[in-house]
Amino acid sequence: MSLLSETIQKIPAIDQPFYDKALERLANQARPAGSLGLLEEASARLAAIKKTLDMRLPNKYILTCAGDHGIVAEGVSLFPQEVTAQMVYNFVSGGASINVLARHAGADVRVADFGVNHDFAPDLPIFHKKIAKGTRNFYKEPAMRRDEAVSAIEAGIETVNDLCAEADVDMIGTGDMGIGNTSPSSAIIAAFSGIAAEKLTGRGTGLDDQGLSHKAAVIETALKKHGPDPKDPIDVLAKVGGFEIAGIAGIVIGAAARGIPVLSDGLISTAGTLIAAELSPATKPFLFAAHQSVEIGHQYMLDRIGLQPLLHLNMRLGEGTGAALAMEILDAATRVLSEIKTFEEVNIINAPEN
Amino acid sequence: MSLLSETIQKIPAIDQPFYDKALERLANQARPAGSLGLLEEASARLAAIKKTLDMRLPNKYILTCAGDHGIVAEGVSLFPQEVTAQMVYNFVSGGASINVLARHAGADVRVADFGVNHDFAPDLPIFHKKIAKGTRNFYKEPAMRRDEAVSAIEAGIETVNDLCAEADVDMIGTGDMGIGNTSPSSAIIAAFSGIAAEKLTGRGTGLDDQGLSHKAAVIETALKKHGPDPKDPIDVLAKVGGFEIAGIAGIVIGAAARGIPVLSDGLISTAGTLIAAELSPATKPFLFAAHQSVEIGHQYMLDRIGLQPLLHLNMRLGEGTGAALAMEILDAATRVLSEIKTFEEVNIINAPEN
Repeated sequence: MSLLSETIQKIPAIDQPFYDKALERLANQARPAGSLGLLEEASARLAAIKKTLDMRLPNKYILTCAGDHGIVAEGVSLFPQEVTAQMVYNFVSGGASINVLARHAGADVRVADFGVNHDFAPDLPIFHKKIAKGTRNFYKEPAMRRDEAVSAIEAGIETVNDLCAEADVDMIGTGDMGIGNTSPSSAIIAAFSGIAAEKLTGRGTGLDDQGLSHKAAVIETALKKHGPDPKDPIDVLAKVGGFEIAGIAGIVIGAAARGIPVLSDGLISTAGTLIAAELSPATKPFLFAAHQSVEIGHQYMLDRIGLQPLLHLNMRLGEGTGAALAMEILDAATRVLSEIKTFEEVNIINAPEN
Repeated sequence: MSLLSETIQKIPAIDQPFYDKALERLANQARPAGSLGLLEEASARLAAIKKTLDMRLPNKYILTCAGDHGIVAEGVSLFPQEVTAQMVYNFVSGGASINVLARHAGADVRVADFGVNHDFAPDLPIFHKKIAKGTRNFYKEPAMRRDEAVSAIEAGIETVNDLCAEADVDMIGTGDMGIGNTSPSSAIIAAFSGIAAEKLTGRGTGLDDQGLSHKAAVIETALKKHGPDPKDPIDVLAKVGGFEIAGIAGIVIGAAARGIPVLSDGLISTAGTLIAAELSPATKPFLFAAHQSVEIGHQYMLDRIGLQPLLHLNMRLGEGTGAALAMEILDAATRVLSEIKTFEEVNIINAPEN
C-alpha cells in the first residue's frame, strides 16, 4: 500500500464525547450563550481533537512550502521566478514577513522545498523534498505527471513525519512561496467547482486589469485543453497544480493522521488543503481556516471545504502569515474553554431560558 | 473651562511625517505592496501616534465600564439587573471572559463603576466613579439629566487620568458591563443616523423574535417622545444613553488627549466611542475597531466613525473581549513595521512597477 493511502487510512475520528462536553461547559459559562461566536466552535473542536477540556498548544509550527511554476512563462506574475529561491533564503535568515508574524505568535517557521528551480546546498536548514525544478507550463502541457503529483503529496506527509520525529507538534500552520502560484490555485478551484476561471482569478501580487484578464484566459484555456477530472483530485493536481500545493496537501493529510490540527493560510495553502479534503473528507475535522484572503478564489475554496475564516484583514501575502496571526486566536480559544467560569462556579444568576 | 472642553482641546494631531515614513517602509518591504492589508494601515497609524517606526505597546489595559439601566423595567433583557453587580465581582476575582482573554493578550483588566445599582465597598479595587444607581427608564423619561451626562463623561476622563497616574499606558481597550445596555446603544446610533430603531436593534443577550420587536418598539417610542438632537451628542447621551456609555466616551477623549490609542470593543463600547467622536472628530486618528459584533447596530456606528473592524468572529459579549483579542493583532502590526526587511535590505528583486 502506498504511503498516501496508508496515511489516509490512519486519520482518526475526533472524539464526539469531548466535543459534547466542551459545548456543555461553554453553554454554562457566565456569559450569554453563544456570545463568543467562532471561538466557541474552535474551542470545542480542539477539545475533541486533543481529547481534553484543558488543552494547550505550546508547540506551534508554520511549514512554508516552496515551489516554482512553468506557467510564469505566460506572464501571469509581476515578479521574476528567481524571487522564489531568494525568499527561501530570506525565510531561513529570519527577515521575512512570516518570520516576524510567527515570532509574534510563538511559532517556529520551517521551510520545505517541493519544487524550487534552484539548487539549495544540502546543509541549508530546510526540508529538502524537491520533486522537480518547477512544474511544466500548464498552458501548454500538464503541470506534472500523475506519479510526480503522488510523490509530492507523499513528500508533504514525510515532512510532517520528519518534523514530528524531532519535536512535539501541537499545531501546524501551512504557508507557501512560489512565484506564479495563484494561477494553479485558481485553476484548482475552477476545476473542482466548474465555475469560470474569470470569476475565481485574482490579481496575485498586483496585476492590473489587463494582466488579470490575461491570467484568467490562460487558466480557462488550460482547463479546456487538459480537462482535469473533478472527481479525481490527483488528476486536477497533476494537470494544473503545483509541487508546493501538493506538499501542502500531504502536510494536511499527514497532520490529520497524527491528530494534529492544521491552520490553512490563504489561497495557495487552501488549494492544497482542498486537494487533501477532496482526497479524504476525514481530514476536515482537523482543519481551521486562518483568514479570508483578498484573492477571490479563496472564499469558494473555504465554502467547498466548509470552513469559516477566523480573520478578515484584507491580506494576500501567503507564506503562512495569516496562519501565524490566527494561531493566537486558536490559543485564545483553548483558554476560553478551561478558564472562563460557569454561572454555578461564580454564583451568578443565569438567564431564565438557559 | 470644564474638564471636558479642556481635555478635548488637548487632543493632539498625529504625526503626518511619521505616518508617511511608515507607509514608505511598508511599501518597500520584501512582499507584494499592500499585501498585509489592514495590518499596514494600523501599523502606520500607530507609528504616527507613537512618533517612531519602532514602537512597542507593552502596557495594555482593558477598562471595563459598568452601569445599570432603568430601561430594563420594560423587559428588554433576559438577565435580571443584579447580574451587573455580580459580574463586577466576577471581573475583580478574575474568572470572567474578559479576564481570560486579557491574560492571553498580556493586558490588565480594570473595572470602573459609573452607575451600577449596588453599593460596592470603597476598598473594592475598581475605579469608583458612580454618578447614580442606574439611569432612569428612558421609555418614560430621559435617562439622565444633561449635567449628569457631562459628569459621567468627565468621570471617564478622570479614570484615564487616575490610571495614567499609577502606570505607563500604551494602549487602552474599552469594555462594558450593564444589563440592558444594548437598548441605549441602539437608541444612540438611531438618534444620530435617523435610521429606524427596528433596523438597528439586535437580540442582545438572546431575545427571541417577539422580544426583539418589543425592544425595537420601546426604543422607537422613546426616541419619538424625547427627540434627542443628533447635532448635540450630550443631548443624545442624556436622553437615551447610559452612565457606562458616557464613561467610555470620556475614556476615549481622555486617552486621545494623552496620545494613547484606543481599541473600541463591540456595540456598547462603540456607542461610547461614537459619542466621543461626535463631540470631537480629533479623537478619530487614535481609534481602532476591535471586531465586528453580531449586534446589527454596530456596523452603522463603525461606518459613521469611519472604522474598519480587525476581527469578524461573530462575537456579541462585550466586557472588552473583542478589544483584548484585537490587541494581539495591533501588537503584530507594530512588529510588521520594524521587523520585516525591505527588498534592499535582503537583496531581493522587486516587481517592476513598485
